[in-house]
Amino acid sequence: MYRFILPVLAGFIFFTAQSQTFTELADTKPRDSEAAWRGLKNNYNFSWGNTDTRYPKYTIPVKQGMENPDGGSTAIRLTAWRGERVNAQAVLYVKDAWQDVSVKVSDLRSGSHIIPSAQVKISPVAYVMTDELNKDGKGGCGHRPDPTKFDSSIVADILDHHVPGFTVEANSTRPVWVSVDVPANVQPGNYKGTLTATGAGSKPLSLSISIQVLNRTLPDASKWSFHLDLWQNPYAVARFHNVPLWSREHFDHMRPLMKMLAGAGQKIITATIMQLPWAGQTYDPFSSMVQKIKNIDGSWQYDYEVFDKWVTYMMQEIGIDAQINCYTMIPWAMNFDYYDKGSNSVKFIHAKTGSPEFASYWMPFLKDFARHLKSKGWFEKTTIAMDERSLADMQSTIKLIKSADAGFKVSLAGNYHKEIEADIYDYCIAFGQHFPTEIKAERDRQGKRSTVYTCCTEPFPNTFTFSAPAEARWLGWHTAAGNYDGYLRWAYNSWTRSPLQDSRFKTWAGGDCYLVYPGGRSSIRFERLREGIQDFEKISILRRELASEPQKLKKLNDMISNFTMEGKAGQTTESMIRNAQQLLNRL
Amino acid sequence: MYRFILPVLAGFIFFTAQSQTFTELADTKPRDSEAAWRGLKNNYNFSWGNTDTRYPKYTIPVKQGMENPDGGSTAIRLTAWRGERVNAQAVLYVKDAWQDVSVKVSDLRSGSHIIPSAQVKISPVAYVMTDELNKDGKGGCGHRPDPTKFDSSIVADILDHHVPGFTVEANSTRPVWVSVDVPANVQPGNYKGTLTATGAGSKPLSLSISIQVLNRTLPDASKWSFHLDLWQNPYAVARFHNVPLWSREHFDHMRPLMKMLAGAGQKIITATIMQLPWAGQTYDPFSSMVQKIKNIDGSWQYDYEVFDKWVTYMMQEIGIDAQINCYTMIPWAMNFDYYDKGSNSVKFIHAKTGSPEFASYWMPFLKDFARHLKSKGWFEKTTIAMDERSLADMQSTIKLIKSADAGFKVSLAGNYHKEIEADIYDYCIAFGQHFPTEIKAERDRQGKRSTVYTCCTEPFPNTFTFSAPAEARWLGWHTAAGNYDGYLRWAYNSWTRSPLQDSRFKTWAGGDCYLVYPGGRSSIRFERLREGIQDFEKISILRRELASEPQKLKKLNDMISNFTMEGKAGQTTESMIRNAQQLLNRL
Repeated sequence: MYRFILPVLAGFIFFTAQSQTFTELADTKPRDSEAAWRGLKNNYNFSWGNTDTRYPKYTIPVKQGMENPDGGSTAIRLTAWRGERVNAQAVLYVKDAWQDVSVKVSDLRSGSHIIPSAQVKISPVAYVMTDELNKDGKGGCGHRPDPTKFDSSIVADILDHHVPGFTVEANSTRPVWVSVDVPANVQPGNYKGTLTATGAGSKPLSLSISIQVLNRTLPDASKWSFHLDLWQNPYAVARFHNVPLWSREHFDHMRPLMKMLAGAGQKIITATIMQLPWAGQTYDPFSSMVQKIKNIDGSWQYDYEVFDKWVTYMMQEIGIDAQINCYTMIPWAMNFDYYDKGSNSVKFIHAKTGSPEFASYWMPFLKDFARHLKSKGWFEKTTIAMDERSLADMQSTIKLIKSADAGFKVSLAGNYHKEIEADIYDYCIAFGQHFPTEIKAERDRQGKRSTVYTCCTEPFPNTFTFSAPAEARWLGWHTAAGNYDGYLRWAYNSWTRSPLQDSRFKTWAGGDCYLVYPGGRSSIRFERLREGIQDFEKISILRRELASEPQKLKKLNDMISNFTMEGKAGQTTESMIRNAQQLLNRL
Repeated sequence: MYRFILPVLAGFIFFTAQSQTFTELADTKPRDSEAAWRGLKNNYNFSWGNTDTRYPKYTIPVKQGMENPDGGSTAIRLTAWRGERVNAQAVLYVKDAWQDVSVKVSDLRSGSHIIPSAQVKISPVAYVMTDELNKDGKGGCGHRPDPTKFDSSIVADILDHHVPGFTVEANSTRPVWVSVDVPANVQPGNYKGTLTATGAGSKPLSLSISIQVLNRTLPDASKWSFHLDLWQNPYAVARFHNVPLWSREHFDHMRPLMKMLAGAGQKIITATIMQLPWAGQTYDPFSSMVQKIKNIDGSWQYDYEVFDKWVTYMMQEIGIDAQINCYTMIPWAMNFDYYDKGSNSVKFIHAKTGSPEFASYWMPFLKDFARHLKSKGWFEKTTIAMDERSLADMQSTIKLIKSADAGFKVSLAGNYHKEIEADIYDYCIAFGQHFPTEIKAERDRQGKRSTVYTCCTEPFPNTFTFSAPAEARWLGWHTAAGNYDGYLRWAYNSWTRSPLQDSRFKTWAGGDCYLVYPGGRSSIRFERLREGIQDFEKISILRRELASEPQKLKKLNDMISNFTMEGKAGQTTESMIRNAQQLLNRL
């Protein structure tokens, strides 16, 4: 079915981590000729590139932002706030194969002050198969049963920080991602260090890196105001690593992944209160974290062991503890599961909102769930979460929820509906929609969350594996520009069958289903998205700090106002972002 | 799919019981001409027939055992032991439609002694669709996906005792089954009474009935020695009546059915300890009566609520309390269910006997099950029940069972295997096979059960809906002839989709899946089978009583010896049975 599954052995780079080995799929794109590669002066080359570029694997990276292919750029200068993570990308490109390569960094020094090398994460970038937007260029939604109908290619996206020593194939490029977590307590100053690539049969190749650390501080991600909601899929992790759901091993495999999410300021635990809340649309369907057991006398019994274990883990071990969104009472299929003890089977009732069957399934559960959440001290943090459904369905369901317990919070990701706005505690609306100014102000006063989402719909901005990396950072600025509190994407890790090799799925454009990779591997997309979130936090801080400096504040606000949907015209995303970033560090 | 589902409205007789209405399907067979029916002297006719005949619906019953069609036989003389049930069959046959017909019986009187009319059950006989043996005449096994490949017709079988008043269609026959339960405490003597058919627009028609009650007593069915094992299917009852499994309504619907079974001397409660012990071969597959719950820490938890409720019901409310057969550890598919709490789903492991997976699924269950059975006082009555599998599989499984608890009993329905015979407490072997004489004697000394079964394999004797009724009674004599302790059939009530109308199934010959009908309706087959069981009990009693009368005993044993597989030659089943029955009442 997948055209590129078979040539799996054609790749030459093996990365291993947590017992997971993968081989990159073969590229399908034209490559630079042998002669072109032979024309390089040096056999092994190492140069700074930029973070906007997905360097093609078999192309000499001269056209991708380096002026001199023979030697490239040997020094990079970054600027950072204390506590900020700044990213850079270097590129290895070689004529002959280079084996046992590893890239290391020195401590960064500014006089007697040090940013220790442990704060710098170095990740060879691996390539994953992707496809493209729909042929009409209008987004990436819809079924894609036949991958041969789309132009596929491998793209640099996976930050494979696990790799201990690797081979750079002859006539090929291997990007290396560099993330510096500037400590919050470091002295301002200009910190300098060296990035060194060593490998078999060659002298080490070095690049210099310097970071100008400003006298401003970005707080820890756990304190960020940005209401980030990337939906977690624990089921994908258990399947990929082939471990029992909710076992110790399962939680162990989730830890680096979920810690990475917490490190981007995630606020919300994705939880389920029914089987298949999204009709099993992902490769790994969501099951219910709550067992609804129908006794043979017709009475209900609820088991929260899985739910409790998941929520407790996320709160206590991972540090994502602000909110629990529970999906859902109004799924697309309106089929509701229960374990029928009499027949020893999981059964489903089909019930419409407002029907007696719907109420008799949900009402006793909601009451018991409220009781349980209160006993755990979680009731105030929990929402019953909905996706867009008909207004009548949503109204009827909200009424039922509130009649079960008036204190229940409700969340919705969908269109803006003035009729139910007041009832939605956490309201995430589609890209391009806006909360009326007065409504948003009132929501702020009430402490309600008002956010925005993108999904497969948007050709730009997006976080597909083929999207321009700067688009992900653009989203943070857009969140500020639209006066949203944060951003939601429906899939943090709803992995495909072989997520490390092939980001294409039977539905939607490549990469739609996940932002990060197994083994706690980040991605160019995720790091750039996180940069945008940092920008959002920096904007919030600057707006407070610049309250008494109207000119500077105006500059900031003018810059932000570029990042509306309409504001993009005439500028490339990359230059918009570069200018905006520079402004944040100048103000 | 079923050729005869569509003409359902062509039938004219409606029977109702417990809210279940059914309409007989249209007959497919040649019928007597209008002229032939018009040739009858009387418009409405009522006559005694015999219990060996399934009277065709549209045929004047002259050829079926009555010498004079105009008036037929107006008197019948039966002979019975005290406590015995004796059956007779009368036939209504009419030129014009006769409406609001009901058949009643008077008390039967012998001087001042009375057999009250309440002891006489009168059941109009309804017709059900059947097919035929395989085309080669060699039994009724195999798939029958296309019913048009078999000759189908409706046959008289259902004893519809519920019907309050019915219509006999113009130019048709309606048999009426008469069962007399002679009280065990009645005085011997000749009891006489009258059977009367009344209906709209005609004078009542009467038949006389007399029963010679002998001075011998058949004990209550609960005390019979015959080890009867007809497998119950509670799932079919819940589905047919559309009530929740194990609900009060479910048990209410099962009561008349299971009481009827107890009334035939059933010894065994059919129970399940896994999902689909027979791979879902019946229209209503068997689920597990025990829930095996796998906790998220990998530990097992077992829930016996359904099992306990079913067993307690059968023992206390129904009176079937001698034995519990639990199916099975070695099903055909070797897939074993459990409720996986983590994924909120019923999962199956596939495991071969002797494998670590097999042992780790079964061993903790068997130990816990033994503990549970002992706590209920049922351990001694319970067997782990198997169907025929490879000898190695059975040996390995027996070993596992015994290692879990050396006291566990094991039962098997299959071929005779000397290698495992000693380990099988309740051993039921296939028709035509025999326990070696010494082995059987030793089994008797040890109190083990040694029985025989028939299934779809046998063209004769059988209890298909088209089988000659006398064959069912023949089975009781065969049980005695083969020195078996009893008889097993795999399906008491594994009903087809519409059991009251169509006894055909996608596999096996018509009626193979069930002996009785919904609503506690008996059948000609079941009543004749029960007669054979009575004969077996009478034989046992006579053998004891005649120990001092060798001549009579020899007569009895000679008669019994006719009922081996080979013994049938040269006699019709009906005459064999008639002679045998008469002998029992003469000795």
